[in-house]
Parts: sequence; structure tokens; C-alpha cells
Amino acid sequence: MAKPQPINYEDASPEVRAVFDDIKTSRNVPDVNNIWKYLARDPVTLRRTWSSVKEVMAPGALDPLVKELVYLAVSVTNNCGYCVASHTAGATKAGMTEAMFGELMAVVGMANETNRLVTGYRVPTDAAFE
Amino acid sequence: MAKPQPINYEDASPEVRAVFDDIKTSRNVPDVNNIWKYLARDPVTLRRTWSSVKEVMAPGALDPLVKELVYLAVSVTNNCGYCVASHTAGATKAGMTEAMFGELMAVVGMANETNRLVTGYRVPTDAAFE
Amino acid sequence: MAKPQPINYEDASPEVRAVFDDIKTSRNVPDVNNIWKYLARDPVTLRRTWSSVKEVMAPGALDPLVKELVYLAVSVTNNCGYCVASHTAGATKAGMTEAMFGELMAVVGMANETNRLVTGYRVPTDAAFE
Amino acid sequence: MAKPQPINYEDASPEVRAVFDDIKTSRNVPDVNNIWKYLARDPVTLRRTWSSVKEVMAPGALDPLVKELVYLAVSVTNNCGYCVASHTAGATKAGMTEAMFGELMAVVGMANETNRLVTGYRVPTDAAFE
Amino acid sequence: MAKPQPINYEDASPEVRAVFDDIKTSRNVPDVNNIWKYLARDPVTLRRTWSSVKEVMAPGALDPLVKELVYLAVSVTNNCGYCVASHTAGATKAGMTEAMFGELMAVVGMANETNRLVTGYRVPTDAAFE
Amino acid sequence: MAKPQPINYEDASPEVRAVFDDIKTSRNVPDVNNIWKYLARDPVTLRRTWSSVKEVMAPGALDPLVKELVYLAVSVTNNCGYCVASHTAGATKAGMTEAMFGELMAVVGMANETNRLVTGYRVPTDAAFE
Repeated sequence: MAKPQPINYEDASPEVRAVFDDIKTSRNVPDVNNIWKYLARDPVTLRRTWSSVKEVMAPGALDPLVKELVYLAVSVTNNCGYCVASHTAGATKAGMTEAMFGELMAVVGMANETNRLVTGYRVPTDAAFE
Repeated sequence: MAKPQPINYEDASPEVRAVFDDIKTSRNVPDVNNIWKYLARDPVTLRRTWSSVKEVMAPGALDPLVKELVYLAVSVTNNCGYCVASHTAGATKAGMTEAMFGELMAVVGMANETNRLVTGYRVPTDAAFE
Repeated sequence: MAKPQPINYEDASPEVRAVFDDIKTSRNVPDVNNIWKYLARDPVTLRRTWSSVKEVMAPGALDPLVKELVYLAVSVTNNCGYCVASHTAGATKAGMTEAMFGELMAVVGMANETNRLVTGYRVPTDAAFE
Repeated sequence: MAKPQPINYEDASPEVRAVFDDIKTSRNVPDVNNIWKYLARDPVTLRRTWSSVKEVMAPGALDPLVKELVYLAVSVTNNCGYCVASHTAGATKAGMTEAMFGELMAVVGMANETNRLVTGYRVPTDAAFE
Repeated sequence: MAKPQPINYEDASPEVRAVFDDIKTSRNVPDVNNIWKYLARDPVTLRRTWSSVKEVMAPGALDPLVKELVYLAVSVTNNCGYCVASHTAGATKAGMTEAMFGELMAVVGMANETNRLVTGYRVPTDAAFE
Repeated sequence: MAKPQPINYEDASPEVRAVFDDIKTSRNVPDVNNIWKYLARDPVTLRRTWSSVKEVMAPGALDPLVKELVYLAVSVTNNCGYCVASHTAGATKAGMTEAMFGELMAVVGMANETNRLVTGYRVPTDAAFE
């Protein structure tokens, strides 16, 4: 297997095009992002992943902006460059301002710091949390 | 050095008590959580960490509930048991319902999944994100 | 210390050349991959790492393809770009097809997702697993 | 929200019971593992996660044992205790012997080691991998 | 919000300049590294982060070289490319030789390996460590 | 395969005993830690891991205390409970005081924080670091 290559709309099979069409309609965009073009190598994973993302990111008890902020926070913690770029864009589209971004990064940084302090000091869970 | 041991209020130095007092006042709680009792082993780290957490978690462009949700999302991603327990409690205090928790976990799970798909497929960043 | 630089065969010491020669013979390749050229900066680590990799990746209860798939799964989880590229190549050489790659990524993604759901929900270990 | 609590079959809603029944039938087990009892707090996530796991772990280009070994490798890398326990059981059911487990752990350990060496030495990707 | 952009000294506000000046004086450098130019987007985070780094990295029970080695070890484990580059430079300035770097990477690699072996084998903590 | 079980000296094969004896002699301890008793399930991994750890942790350009501090820093970052406990003990034996431990945790926490800030702000590597 060589390095994975993207599949563009014009070269896609009908089942892949159907997913691409649903992404474009749902998000009101002229083309899908690179992640979908690469997942198209495996139509089963493409369909399942899009279907899951669509369900998970829909408005619910949490609004779409909060969900995008959380997605970005996880992507930063996992050090995933593509994901940081795409979810910064996604969160911005959902309403994230630069001030929100700054506070988000501050919280993400602090959480990563205190998570390790807790581990290093071997802090036992408070009875009140059980 | 033996296993780290907590320092309770009654055994704390004046500088540690001052931090504990500020935590109790700021959060309107009768006692501080275990993390602070363990960090009290190192008063410099205790003071700096509390001061930073207080600043970072204050209301701003993001409200306190969103910040707690993000803190919990990072703690789950880092697999920190104590942090998950304490920030589930913190988020609940800030207004998280069980429905919000369910959606939050769904987003965190999905982000961790797609972060790896992106890495495995070596997806390049879309020009639009740069 | 400046940025680490690789050592090529023609500039290598006899002890480094001996490791390079063994890699080339064992893998039947005309040159070693970049990782070995960089580890050559520290001949002790070069020798130990190659010796360990050679032992660990040899056929045994698990065949070489399975071992390469696992290596790739770990590299994706750790978000190591070089490692993903080199072990995609390694797995392909050992027989990985694109269909296998697709399923592998699907499993890696799912495992990363459910790992976090378990942590977030604080699921206790079933008695049957102990 | 208090600490998440499991939902047992006898207390489950019809939609949750339908998922539990499918898990029990598909895996030929008398009861579901704890993860499903906790995810039952959020029936949407329960249904989506089970549906995805069922699809991803089905026999395909990779056989079920290989998929379980990969799941375990990821769980070890993420340091998820519950996941290690449950997927050691799952892999064993799929045919993993103790010899296979030993070799699997050796590969996982080695991959985690070399992933970091590559990062520390800043090894550039070989042209042949692109 | 577009992709974050750095703020250079000549375009910086007085409060940002004050932090930049302190960094340049404390480290005796003509300009600050990129991280500070990006954090300058959020002056509150810039000030708090620099203040914390300055306090944490000052000579104390551990000398500055040891602290830089630890910072580099964490950065490698987290697979942060920028951080590896900047802390390799920082450690070198504090006295790290190439021989030290080689041994540091060897320890980091080994720790990452045995951390996973312990998790995979589910090793319980020795009574003597409690 | 059931849950991994330790092998004690009295039940060990000659090849496992030989490794246990070398650990006891090298470290001047009456018994080996749990990690070795579990790795004894796979004598090849036991031998290789001990041999590697012995080589890596020997005095060299870095003294044993620094190496233990680094090992502990990595273990905290990886959130490995057993490893934190065992390497806190190991570092203490090598001379770590509580003041050193406090500073070490402060550096580990700060590095984990700034690693994420760098990722979130997408900070490019300074030309001076290349």
C-alpha cells in the first residue's frame, strides 16, 4: 500500500458521492474537507464516521459552539495538527471569537498541567466525588 | 521521600492557610479538595496553581460551565481518574445536567476517534485552514 | 548541541557500520531508514534499539504482519508522523493490503473512542475480568 | 449530576434492552459488560457505539483475533485499565494465547519507545515513504 | 477567527512589550521566541505563562540544566515538535552536551516502553511504595 | 489467557532466576519489584527489558539521580500509577528530596501546559532552532 491518497468528488463511487453530497448539504459548503476525501478510501468507515459525527455534533443539550470548542480542546490535547486547524475553523464558523479562543487555550493548558500534578502527587479521590 | 501526604488546614503553615482560605471563600466551600491538600507540600506550587486556576476559570468570554466542560473533556482524554471525578463534580455545580454530560462524552469520544483517523491517513491541512 | 544530524554509512564508525550492515542484511535493503541514521549519533542506543527491534519483530507466536499492524496502531495512537509513514511501509512490505489498512484504522479509531468513554463514565472493571 | 451509575437489564427502557439483547445474541453471552450498562445512561450513544463496534470488529480483511490484539495494543498505549482488562478477555476469547500476549506487549512497548526516539531526534520522513 | 498570527515587538501593546522586555532581560536575548509572539494574542495568558515559567525554571533544589532536561523529556513524550526544538536549544544553552542528549533520549524511550508493559501486565503497586 | 499473574523467585525457572539474581545484586535489594515478577511470564521480554534498563540507567553523562527524575517525569506525563510510585521510590533512593520532587512536578506540569499552548496556537519553529 502506498501513501494514502484522497478521492475527489469527480472520481468517487456513487456511495462515496452520496456521503459527500450529504456533508455538503448539511454544512452548506461547496466541497468537503480533506479528511472526508481520505476516508473515502474506505467507504464503510467514511459512511459510519460521517453519520456518527453528524449525530454527535447536532444541537442538543449542548449547543454547536460548545461542541466545537470541546472538539478543539481534545484535538489540542492530542497534539493533532490537522484537527486543530480544522476545528479552529469549525469553531469559528460556529461563533468562536478570538477572545473565546484565548480563554479556551488557557483552560486546556491549565487542565493538562493539573492533570499531571494530580498524577504525580498521587491524589486520592475525595469521598464527596464518589 | 515517602509517598506524598496531604496537609490539612489545622496543620498548615500561615501561607498555606491563606491559600486555603481564599479557595474556600472563592468557591464558598467548607473545605478544600484533596488536590490542594497535596499541593500544600510545596507552597510555591500551591499558590501559583491556585492563582492560575482562579484567573483561568473566572467568567469571561466563555462562561464557567463551558470552562468546566472543557476541563472535563481534557481530563477524560488524559485518562486522569481523579480529574474526571473532581471536574464532573465541578461541572455539575456549574450547571451540567446528565444530558449535557452524555453529549460531552460523545463529542470527546468522537474527537479522539477522528484525531487518530487523520493521523493514520496522513491527511494534509486544507489550504482554507491556513 | 545543534539540531541532530544523520550519519550516513560512508561517514560512520566501524561499530555503527556493523549495525547498519546487519539491518541491511536482515531486511534485505540497500540502505537503512532515517531513524537508524539519527540514532547513529549514539552508538550504544543504536545497537540496543536495533537488537531489541530485531528480537521483538521476529516471527514467533504472532506473525510479522500482525506485529507490523500493531506497531502502526500504536504509532497512530501516539500521533507520530514519521512512525506512521515508516510502519505503513513496513506493514505493506509484510503483506498489508489497503483493505487491511482501512479496517486497522477503523479499529484504532474505535478503540481510542471507547477508551475515553470508559474513562469518562468511570466504568469499574467487571468481576469476570479479574 | 452524581457519579455515573450503571443500568441493569431489568431496569432498562425498551430501546436500551433492544441493544443489550443484540449484544447478548451477537456475542453469545448471558449479560453485557459494564461499559454497556454505563453507556445505557445515554441511549443514543449506547446504540451508536454498539452499532459501530459491531461493524468494526466483524470479520473482514483482518480476522477478529487480529482486531482484538490491536484494540488491546491501543488500550495499553492509552493506559486505560478497564479497557486492558476487557480486551485481554476479548482477545483471549478470540484465541490469544499467553505467548501471543507476551509478544504483543513486547511490540507495544517497543513501538512506544521508538515513537519517542524519532520525536526526540527529529527524524525527517524518508523520501521512500512519501 | 483566522489562523493565529504572531505579534512582533514593534506592533505590541505596552503590556505585551513589558513582558517581552522582561523575557529579553531575564534570558539575555535580543528577541523572544515564537511562542511568546503567539501568546501575545492573549496578554493575560502571556503574562501568566511567562510569570509561571520564570518561577518554575529558576534555580532551586534542581539546577536549570536538570529542569531543561525534564522539560525536553516531557515534550518528547507528548510528541510536540516545536517544544522539542525549543527545549533542545534551551537545554543546550544550559549545558547539555550531545552525550547527555543521547542518554536523555534513551531514558525517555525506556520509560515510555516500561510504562506500557506495566499497564499491559496490570502490575499492582508494591506494598513498599505505599 | 487469564489475568496476568506474577512469578515469585521460588517458582521461577533457572533463566528467570538468573535475571532476578542480577537485579537483586545490581540494586542490592532482597527481592525484585512487581514489574519483574510479571514480566517473568515472558522470559525473553524479562531478560531484554532488564538488560536495557540496566544499560540505560547506569551512570554516564547523566548521573543516576537525573535519570530517575526524568523517568519519573515521563511516568507522570503518561499517567502511569505504578510507574509514578516505583520511580518516586527509585528517585528517592538516588537522592531526591521532597524539595526536588516539588520542583520536578512543577516543571512537568508547566511543560504539559505549554506543550498544548504551542499546539493550539500552531506556533512555527523558530529559524534559530533548525
